[in-house]
Amino acid sequence: MRLALEQAGAAYMDVARQKKGMPAMLASLDTEQFPQAAFAPPVLRHGELLIGQTANILLYLGPRHGLAPRALAGRLWANQLQLTIADIVNEAHDTHHPISTNLYYEDQKKEAKARARDFAAARIPKYLGYFEGILSQNGGRGGFAVGSRLSYVDLSLFQLVEGLRYAFPKAMARLEADYPRLLALCEHVAALPNIARYLSSKRRIPFNEDGIFRRYPELEK
Amino acid sequence: MRLALEQAGAAYMDVARQKKGMPAMLASLDTEQFPQAAFAPPVLRHGELLIGQTANILLYLGPRHGLAPRALAGRLWANQLQLTIADIVNEAHDTHHPISTNLYYEDQKKEAKARARDFAAARIPKYLGYFEGILSQNGGRGGFAVGSRLSYVDLSLFQLVEGLRYAFPKAMARLEADYPRLLALCEHVAALPNIARYLSSKRRIPFNEDGIFRRYPELEK
Repeated sequence: MRLALEQAGAAYMDVARQKKGMPAMLASLDTEQFPQAAFAPPVLRHGELLIGQTANILLYLGPRHGLAPRALAGRLWANQLQLTIADIVNEAHDTHHPISTNLYYEDQKKEAKARARDFAAARIPKYLGYFEGILSQNGGRGGFAVGSRLSYVDLSLFQLVEGLRYAFPKAMARLEADYPRLLALCEHVAALPNIARYLSSKRRIPFNEDGIFRRYPELEK
Repeated sequence: MRLALEQAGAAYMDVARQKKGMPAMLASLDTEQFPQAAFAPPVLRHGELLIGQTANILLYLGPRHGLAPRALAGRLWANQLQLTIADIVNEAHDTHHPISTNLYYEDQKKEAKARARDFAAARIPKYLGYFEGILSQNGGRGGFAVGSRLSYVDLSLFQLVEGLRYAFPKAMARLEADYPRLLALCEHVAALPNIARYLSSKRRIPFNEDGIFRRYPELEK
């Protein structure tokens, strides 16, 4: 979501990172304060609109900022790919919380090791192989996921690969070369002027062990 | 997705259930046969369109069949709720497969018990409480999730509650009364003529232990 806003050059405020921003963010999850409260972050507020669920936010931002196809079929296809990215992101989260989000990682470490092993051995190759296949079959020029133009799906694929590289460096070092089109796309995204500027700015939050993609070396042993 | 098609009275063919239907379904997941192949079922084929991801299929079907608001804000809100339903459905799946979809349930039963315990104690109330809050705050008449008309979100909430009742009968018997608006909505959906006819037909696949919602009594001990 931040990558889409940055690539679009849109002015936005990252509320939860502002001083006293956390209560405002939490209010957006409270059905008594907002009839259209979200179940969980992230939430985009734009005027009267309050939009939750990352894929839904991108469904809104994409056409507004030229980051999605104009025709319905193309928009659905972009949304479908984004939802598939959401699925692997979910699975990446569950590698460190396979039993409960209400327990600490330390209290489910053994199960986390088992789930992470399966994730790195079976799920990463399955998903990345799928995305490589999609890139390979896309008749459009430019090596993009959807048609012949950059879309939010490309930005999300970049974020996914970066997250996987952070959390599973060994697995990715071993696997990456199998997905040349995906890697080329990620390089292209990283080099887009607005994205490059963002990535080297303080607005970019480094991957860390409070996020979805966490580097716990014991999960790669 | 079937509930939406049934409520709409749309003609459809459930390909995977036809004789020799499975290869056709599997082909729709093959990027070498379809450039817009899906990562996983379900897939809706309509003319030249091939659409994957349940929420995305409903995003397409909803406006075509009067099962979604016409305005963008309403459509986004319906999609957001559908994605939140998808999240709890995903978590329900992981109660019987917390470690790996490549292992049998029997080989991850201990972890399944731990995850199911957390799901029933913490996650079901958290999600159903959220949906109850949304129903309570919706200013529209009729007790629907979105505005004053039936939408695919209502059908999905019904399917969710039915699935939870099947998989976690003890937890649901204990919790249900806390969500009177949600229960009333489910009763309303079940009594819609097209839905009632479908539910008592052979087209309705009973919940079973190959599906997402599985009844393993040991997970509720």
